[in-house]
Amino acid sequence: MDGNTWDAEPDPEFIRRARSILGAPGVFVAADDKRLYEHGFYGERGRALAVLSPADTDETVEMLRLCAEFGLEVLPQGGNTGLVGASIPDKTGAQVVLSTRRMDQLAPVDLVNRSVCTGAGVRMSQLRAALKAAGMWFPFEIAADPCVGGMVSTNTGGSHLVRYGDLRRSVLGLEVVLADGTVIDSLRALRKDNTGPDCKQLFIGSGGSFGIVTRAVLEVQRLPLARTAALVVPRSHADLPELLRWLEARYGEMLTTFEGMSGNAIRYAYAEFPKLKRFFTDEAVPEYAVLVDVASSSEFCAASLVDDFHAALAGLAGGSVIRDVVTGCDADFWALRDAIPYALSRQPLALTFDVSFARSRLTMFRDDLCSLLARRYPGVVLADFGHFAEGGDHATVVIPESCKTAQSSLQLMRLRGDIYETVAAHAGSFSAEHGLGPFNENVYRRYAPGATRELNASLKRMLDPAGRLGRIKFN
Amino acid sequence: MDGNTWDAEPDPEFIRRARSILGAPGVFVAADDKRLYEHGFYGERGRALAVLSPADTDETVEMLRLCAEFGLEVLPQGGNTGLVGASIPDKTGAQVVLSTRRMDQLAPVDLVNRSVCTGAGVRMSQLRAALKAAGMWFPFEIAADPCVGGMVSTNTGGSHLVRYGDLRRSVLGLEVVLADGTVIDSLRALRKDNTGPDCKQLFIGSGGSFGIVTRAVLEVQRLPLARTAALVVPRSHADLPELLRWLEARYGEMLTTFEGMSGNAIRYAYAEFPKLKRFFTDEAVPEYAVLVDVASSSEFCAASLVDDFHAALAGLAGGSVIRDVVTGCDADFWALRDAIPYALSRQPLALTFDVSFARSRLTMFRDDLCSLLARRYPGVVLADFGHFAEGGDHATVVIPESCKTAQSSLQLMRLRGDIYETVAAHAGSFSAEHGLGPFNENVYRRYAPGATRELNASLKRMLDPAGRLGRIKFN
Repeated sequence: MDGNTWDAEPDPEFIRRARSILGAPGVFVAADDKRLYEHGFYGERGRALAVLSPADTDETVEMLRLCAEFGLEVLPQGGNTGLVGASIPDKTGAQVVLSTRRMDQLAPVDLVNRSVCTGAGVRMSQLRAALKAAGMWFPFEIAADPCVGGMVSTNTGGSHLVRYGDLRRSVLGLEVVLADGTVIDSLRALRKDNTGPDCKQLFIGSGGSFGIVTRAVLEVQRLPLARTAALVVPRSHADLPELLRWLEARYGEMLTTFEGMSGNAIRYAYAEFPKLKRFFTDEAVPEYAVLVDVASSSEFCAASLVDDFHAALAGLAGGSVIRDVVTGCDADFWALRDAIPYALSRQPLALTFDVSFARSRLTMFRDDLCSLLARRYPGVVLADFGHFAEGGDHATVVIPESCKTAQSSLQLMRLRGDIYETVAAHAGSFSAEHGLGPFNENVYRRYAPGATRELNASLKRMLDPAGRLGRIKFN
Repeated sequence: MDGNTWDAEPDPEFIRRARSILGAPGVFVAADDKRLYEHGFYGERGRALAVLSPADTDETVEMLRLCAEFGLEVLPQGGNTGLVGASIPDKTGAQVVLSTRRMDQLAPVDLVNRSVCTGAGVRMSQLRAALKAAGMWFPFEIAADPCVGGMVSTNTGGSHLVRYGDLRRSVLGLEVVLADGTVIDSLRALRKDNTGPDCKQLFIGSGGSFGIVTRAVLEVQRLPLARTAALVVPRSHADLPELLRWLEARYGEMLTTFEGMSGNAIRYAYAEFPKLKRFFTDEAVPEYAVLVDVASSSEFCAASLVDDFHAALAGLAGGSVIRDVVTGCDADFWALRDAIPYALSRQPLALTFDVSFARSRLTMFRDDLCSLLARRYPGVVLADFGHFAEGGDHATVVIPESCKTAQSSLQLMRLRGDIYETVAAHAGSFSAEHGLGPFNENVYRRYAPGATRELNASLKRMLDPAGRLGRIKFN
């Protein structure tokens, strides 16, 4: 071992039998080999007893049976890009990480059905490249490069949710292995199949706590033929609903992105990444801006979409809703948008919230949040951004060093609680797309309805009676 | 009573207490009053001990508790338009029908969120009228007029599934009452909410066996600004995938309907409904025709859609894929399509199958089905029609009186079994959109994977331990 003498030692018999099935490349016990699987996105750290990396469904079944036999807890892990701490083991050193990464088989794209069967370990980038070669597209764009299994388990959202929905909508078929090794085979390529309850839905968005996704059949889309973006500055945040209404009326399903960025968020991005293309001088950063993206895969209207979009927006600029429209290179707009979460994560003290609302409540929530901060936490900066068209807001609050109202742990805890209360007051979700993990489990206990928690606990007991799977035990 | 002395008499105390809560308009015990709730679409008949019709969620809770106290089975019923026999009580006369029809409250449409909160008893027609007045649309078009609760419970498909998906995709929020009266409150208007497993999914498409849907929040769409249809005659059934590919490439998301009709199905419609507009002479009815419908709610391209569609199709007519394009009044095309199931239901002897496949398997399935019939059942007529773009086929086989190969019960049973075997051989679904009920429960037992059936049985035991809810017990 590497000197971490407080590491639990796995039973040599367990390791011997795991190796006899997976071979040496599928079993890691040395500290250096395990490290990659023990660190999360925000630097959070756990300890794994061992890492098992089965290459297919059969090996996954055998590993789950083996872990059951030895009474070991199992933490499923895909690309380990999760943001709520659910993809790394806890600190006990007693949990086995089951990595799905070697299950990276990708079947040929079925062009007639517009679908593809993928292993859980296929990376987003791998899927995207294979689809592009076939003229197809999987419309989930997020900054990270997750694996399919993790995306299914967390029901990924992303910037195009307004057009394509959450990941659940694109899952045609699913194969899942339960804690006891039972295989649930719903691996079909069907758009409709009402032969009883749709049990695969149980495993989408439940974070690996109910079973381990091993394969999925995904519906895919044709590659857009035309796509363009603009940075739109509304008169004020209160004009966002009207801007969205106008865009949906004019472009219907072609509206694929409507990403809000507060002026504060833009300022942090500029400050942290000086090489970003500057669309605004420091003095002229607007209160709010929206990255709007339209796309079409239809030969009928793709040719005129780009010109129409820019002409129509230019016609509205200076009017009652739109103050200004910034034109430029689409990639520069996206670079600014993508820089924001990284810029905010570099602040010494900040709290991030991944919340969502009915679109009709979003501006009200934001008004109340601003009032709350001004009233109880002067000096705290709201630097939010998010997928407004889907009701989403990544409501990040930055606490500058000079701010005295939210420095102590107690103050921060109260601030966090006050913000979640404001979310609840507007019937919002406390985790819109990041899912459930150690970072927000206490919020779940506070805000999920009692009957829902009871139901989740019953499902957990039914599917994993010994409670050995995943970070969240629902107990 | 009405002379049916074999009717079980409900306990007077049960009726007294039900009336004390629901009032007289909510409790039916007289045979004449119950009749409406005891007959299904195909004339199938059951017997209800009583019919309870709560007006809201609280009353539903009280009725379920009351039925639990008296140990009574409960059959939830919405519009009673189901096609698998699941919406009427069994023949024992011991089941209480719980009708959701009085829960017909409809909240104002939220235009910014594009959503509406409806009671389970709201009829499709009522919803459509309210939405139309607000410039909105719920894109589920089926011949019947079901209630929202039933549509959710059966995960309705319909003719626009290729564009809008199944009903599941439009359910933002749901309120459900379990057999013991527990209320599961997921009645949110959120497009994304990943605060744990999405438990409302359990109740969508499970036919009321897991719980009774009382309210739903539905995502709605903007009313199309332009919509047009044509009847396209491909060279042969084998050309359908290429026709579909061309349409998806040209019109993308604007393709809203791709309904196949076999020549035989068209012939039966013409024979039964002489007033139907005739697009073909008897001699010239093609092997197959497709009702194609495109629609757009986008101001940007709606104006030119209709002209482009007809010009583009005319340009392809007479080519390698399209033999002919019939133009005419859209309503006449739909009248022909809608007449087919009614014409087939009038045949003295016919078997209907509601099956689906990966789109890439659909023509293969049909070829195999034709071979099967020619080989083993000469004289039997395949008169299929269906939603080809979603992989669906309503594969109806008509057995003329002259046909000697499928007249006896034994022959019919073998024919039915052979067709389901052919479906399974192509990895198809034995119930694409009609759900599960007494009519196809034996097919479920034969073809649903064992682990799936076991999982459904466990869910049933968990959610309804006494097995008192719905027609399908999953045991």
